[in-house]
Amino acid sequence: MAKVGIVMGSDSDMKIMSKAADMLEKFGIEYEMTIISAHRMPDIFFDYAKSAESKGIKVIIAGAGMAAHLPGMCAAIFPMPVIGIPMSGGAFEGMDALLSIVQMPSGVPVATVAMDGGKNAGILAAKILATSDEALLQKLKDFKEEMKDEVSAKDAKLQEVGYKKYEK
Amino acid sequence: MAKVGIVMGSDSDMKIMSKAADMLEKFGIEYEMTIISAHRMPDIFFDYAKSAESKGIKVIIAGAGMAAHLPGMCAAIFPMPVIGIPMSGGAFEGMDALLSIVQMPSGVPVATVAMDGGKNAGILAAKILATSDEALLQKLKDFKEEMKDEVSAKDAKLQEVGYKKYEK
Amino acid sequence: MAKVGIVMGSDSDMKIMSKAADMLEKFGIEYEMTIISAHRMPDIFFDYAKSAESKGIKVIIAGAGMAAHLPGMCAAIFPMPVIGIPMSGGAFEGMDALLSIVQMPSGVPVATVAMDGGKNAGILAAKILATSDEALLQKLKDFKEEMKDEVSAKDAKLQEVGYKKYEK
Amino acid sequence: MAKVGIVMGSDSDMKIMSKAADMLEKFGIEYEMTIISAHRMPDIFFDYAKSAESKGIKVIIAGAGMAAHLPGMCAAIFPMPVIGIPMSGGAFEGMDALLSIVQMPSGVPVATVAMDGGKNAGILAAKILATSDEALLQKLKDFKEEMKDEVSAKDAKLQEVGYKKYEK
Amino acid sequence: MAKVGIVMGSDSDMKIMSKAADMLEKFGIEYEMTIISAHRMPDIFFDYAKSAESKGIKVIIAGAGMAAHLPGMCAAIFPMPVIGIPMSGGAFEGMDALLSIVQMPSGVPVATVAMDGGKNAGILAAKILATSDEALLQKLKDFKEEMKDEVSAKDAKLQEVGYKKYEK
Amino acid sequence: MAKVGIVMGSDSDMKIMSKAADMLEKFGIEYEMTIISAHRMPDIFFDYAKSAESKGIKVIIAGAGMAAHLPGMCAAIFPMPVIGIPMSGGAFEGMDALLSIVQMPSGVPVATVAMDGGKNAGILAAKILATSDEALLQKLKDFKEEMKDEVSAKDAKLQEVGYKKYEK
Amino acid sequence: MAKVGIVMGSDSDMKIMSKAADMLEKFGIEYEMTIISAHRMPDIFFDYAKSAESKGIKVIIAGAGMAAHLPGMCAAIFPMPVIGIPMSGGAFEGMDALLSIVQMPSGVPVATVAMDGGKNAGILAAKILATSDEALLQKLKDFKEEMKDEVSAKDAKLQEVGYKKYEK
Amino acid sequence: MAKVGIVMGSDSDMKIMSKAADMLEKFGIEYEMTIISAHRMPDIFFDYAKSAESKGIKVIIAGAGMAAHLPGMCAAIFPMPVIGIPMSGGAFEGMDALLSIVQMPSGVPVATVAMDGGKNAGILAAKILATSDEALLQKLKDFKEEMKDEVSAKDAKLQEVGYKKYEK
Repeated sequence: MAKVGIVMGSDSDMKIMSKAADMLEKFGIEYEMTIISAHRMPDIFFDYAKSAESKGIKVIIAGAGMAAHLPGMCAAIFPMPVIGIPMSGGAFEGMDALLSIVQMPSGVPVATVAMDGGKNAGILAAKILATSDEALLQKLKDFKEEMKDEVSAKDAKLQEVGYKKYEK
Repeated sequence: MAKVGIVMGSDSDMKIMSKAADMLEKFGIEYEMTIISAHRMPDIFFDYAKSAESKGIKVIIAGAGMAAHLPGMCAAIFPMPVIGIPMSGGAFEGMDALLSIVQMPSGVPVATVAMDGGKNAGILAAKILATSDEALLQKLKDFKEEMKDEVSAKDAKLQEVGYKKYEK
Repeated sequence: MAKVGIVMGSDSDMKIMSKAADMLEKFGIEYEMTIISAHRMPDIFFDYAKSAESKGIKVIIAGAGMAAHLPGMCAAIFPMPVIGIPMSGGAFEGMDALLSIVQMPSGVPVATVAMDGGKNAGILAAKILATSDEALLQKLKDFKEEMKDEVSAKDAKLQEVGYKKYEK
Repeated sequence: MAKVGIVMGSDSDMKIMSKAADMLEKFGIEYEMTIISAHRMPDIFFDYAKSAESKGIKVIIAGAGMAAHLPGMCAAIFPMPVIGIPMSGGAFEGMDALLSIVQMPSGVPVATVAMDGGKNAGILAAKILATSDEALLQKLKDFKEEMKDEVSAKDAKLQEVGYKKYEK
Repeated sequence: MAKVGIVMGSDSDMKIMSKAADMLEKFGIEYEMTIISAHRMPDIFFDYAKSAESKGIKVIIAGAGMAAHLPGMCAAIFPMPVIGIPMSGGAFEGMDALLSIVQMPSGVPVATVAMDGGKNAGILAAKILATSDEALLQKLKDFKEEMKDEVSAKDAKLQEVGYKKYEK
Repeated sequence: MAKVGIVMGSDSDMKIMSKAADMLEKFGIEYEMTIISAHRMPDIFFDYAKSAESKGIKVIIAGAGMAAHLPGMCAAIFPMPVIGIPMSGGAFEGMDALLSIVQMPSGVPVATVAMDGGKNAGILAAKILATSDEALLQKLKDFKEEMKDEVSAKDAKLQEVGYKKYEK
Repeated sequence: MAKVGIVMGSDSDMKIMSKAADMLEKFGIEYEMTIISAHRMPDIFFDYAKSAESKGIKVIIAGAGMAAHLPGMCAAIFPMPVIGIPMSGGAFEGMDALLSIVQMPSGVPVATVAMDGGKNAGILAAKILATSDEALLQKLKDFKEEMKDEVSAKDAKLQEVGYKKYEK
Repeated sequence: MAKVGIVMGSDSDMKIMSKAADMLEKFGIEYEMTIISAHRMPDIFFDYAKSAESKGIKVIIAGAGMAAHLPGMCAAIFPMPVIGIPMSGGAFEGMDALLSIVQMPSGVPVATVAMDGGKNAGILAAKILATSDEALLQKLKDFKEEMKDEVSAKDAKLQEVGYKKYEK
């Protein structure tokens, strides 16, 4: 049974949303991914947000660009955490999306991550579930070690070849 | 029967929304004013937006600040024009509200007016209704003359007393 | 007789303005399209704006970039709704155009749509005319269903093939 | 044993951070509140972030203004969710804080809430803990009803007295 | 016969525009000051801009806030220099006015000065006229000496009393 | 004898500065063009700015990007008009240059034109010189007619072929 | 003999510049403070910047607002470090000053500190001089301890009285 | 023994950081370059910053993008100057990085240079060390002459061939 719902308003956001799914798969967390537009199909959206809890969803990850209402409207209906991903693109490069997502009124928070932060949204969902799942928490700690080792390897290479011969 | 619905998410917006109502009264247009939060009472909001047409509403004027979703969600449901008023205030002085309202995705426009533009929202609603109402159109033309006369009177005073003695 | 006037200051805006025309054609609304610069030919512009009403125009759609004065000057002269489309491009990616169009002073509103929102401008014009045209209103409702179906089809495809094989 | 750690770099942020504490108290969630500056006492900060898990902390709420590094540095060390509150104030009214908190690199998310969003940070922490606590989830649902009733009461008053006599 | 026309759209701008007049008086340059709104009285505005040359005007100084069209529309009609003063105020503190004035399209420049730069507009008008007026040029050089002496006097005071006792 | 000095800090600005020279040539105005960096060769810059008047220069056109000090430092020394051109490019797309040029302190104006406004700077210089040169003023009026005719020709083409076949 | 030169263009900046002087006094570093405007007295400014080295100055601290050219022009002439302090105030709250100071072209760096960062400028000057002064370095380390103790004292108070009774 | 430590959080920053190294090599200053992420390997980062002084480091140059915490965290630990380089890129083109680096709280300055200012960071480090190194100071003066000659050569070419034939 899916624990995380990934939702986007348009398939143009799938490249970013996929990164969230990739992380959930990496951590072994079940999820479902859906394309639903709060603006173009408000009824279907309402049903989705209302029924999410009964389907076992504990966290919703919602991504949107421009006047990004999807995460906030999810948070208005779904009672557990909603993670919002502002999409870049458009004339304002996503500043519109960031402000539309993060500046929620008192009482209805959206846990906002960085612009195009699909990967971080997946990690944050895992961290949320890890508050009650020791095995998952351990996986997150292992992941942190992986990240450290990646950077260390790059530094080791730099020390070996010098910056003039360093090639990414 | 009300032709214009004025809706706001919080009574903190009433000072601005009242200016829209004032203009509608000036032009003799029936309206109703409601406080409904799309974020705090999504069900009631949905009912409102869905039933507006059947109540005779032709134009909705919706005001909101910060992550301003109310106008856009009205436009997702109501099939006739929605006028959005971005509210200033908050850390970003309403830039968040402006972008959340104006940057709607293709297919779902919101007719956005200036920051705190309650008066202009009322006038725009009148202009919309005047596309099929000659008498109302004449009132709008008279109003334009009024505005011209107000500025002319100020200039006349300036020419008379000079800028050093001019007091607003 | 044209009911909507589409006006732009430069043919560089035609790609966007054409999307407004496309929507009007879709909804069967007569329109005329004109290139007039308020800055480079103020006399001709004045004549245009003053004579629009007598030609049967009910709504003007005006697009402009940078210091975008065309929509606002239309609204200063034409007594019915003016829809403004801010054009992106230039060093500030259209933030200059957006603010020049939306921040109109009290008394002279411009119904501003999203950056490069040609399609939305056409839809908004249709929504305005639909306040007094039941057949047009029905077309707008049908269009909403179309949009819903398009998104639903994408979601169906996603559910079928999964995000890893999904190709836009 | 405290489940939520509230941390701020300066007591000038306490007015906002207190709102988070108020919400946690409302929901009956144990917390501890600390003043620690990552910039002025990096050693003490490191000890705090490293020992939080062993003290039973499941969520850290960190607030900061300007070049706001505290939430991000917590997220670099603490393995469960960190909620970041950007503080307004200063020449840029908190845009510096918002970007310093939300724009975290891949691998190290901070769950960012609105500017000065102390109350929302507390609610988000509760929502996170509610993913494994049915009783807390029910409290959150009750709280949503409370919010709805507050807005409904305001609308009822508006319908009764009209906007001209409405006093907040 | 007035050589400089000072024009503003609203008497709320008079405090700033007066500083331009003060400088023109200081340099002995004749001017006229007028309140004309391009938005609220486009016909009167057109007559003003068209007749300015025949009245002997060599430079127009135009101030405006928000969607500031007055300077640009003057420049579209009047063939000699137009100096634009963006007014601060409003939700965006005049960024809208600055961009609406400075970002003029190719062919129609406005000589833009700083936000609320009434004094600088007056000086710039004098500098323009001084390109063909030796006596005026000398006055501008004398004024530069005055400015230098004012700063020097402040520094002398600082050196005498030290910063701890310095009172502005 | 050159009447206009065109100065830039780097040859990377020449593409834009050349447009100013093109306009001066079109209007038959003598000019000189120089590459001088106020930051990299302050002594040479000082000599340039101080000797400009004695060489017959009536207007300086200065272009610069990023922390654009060249126009303002010219205005600090040269007693007649300085026109500043903010260059786009760099991380902030020239917003830094615009603010560095336009926001001059009281007493030292720079006549700022649009981003990359080389052509407009040349026209503005001509307008300034036209305040005392009837023949030049006539050329500027002729140029305005040219611009009008160009737009009219585009509109004529649009009316003939329609927007679907219009090719720029 | 003064090791640090503090320079500002206007006495309106003295409140901020004084904080730099306070820190230098705290660390026992000799300094001189001067009011010189690069815009209003370019000759005197040039003499100042050119003679600073011969007077023993090792670091210049320059503060300015709006189109802030003073720090950059110091850096163009003085061969050792120049610290720039952007002043807040004005319509853009100092964003203009920050960009005018920090965005220096290649070859001419200004060490920019935070908006109104007088205190930090003084500390940075001390850190620069401490690269060759062990005693001064020790003072800086002691100062760091002081800062830590101040925060610790606040936290101790918070732990004692709780946030509800905490008064700043 | 290295006098300057160059540190970056990711090898994606190496292109810019290399320019700092290039300048240090040009001036004959020993340095070490390291890849360390404060976010992904906080323990290793702490050791680095704490041990830098004992390794002889006098200046740290730290570059970072987005929520750029590396320079500020270095400044929190290392007692001598830290130079911060904001990296462009990402949705906000580095405005996030600039504000995250420059807006440090009182007591903990970072000497911020321009966006992507690797070269300037190297020069600033040299200027800092030149406060106690006459030979290095002379090299900096020679470098200034070089820069001047480069610009002069470009101007000479322009005077010779004219702008129409000038090719960069």
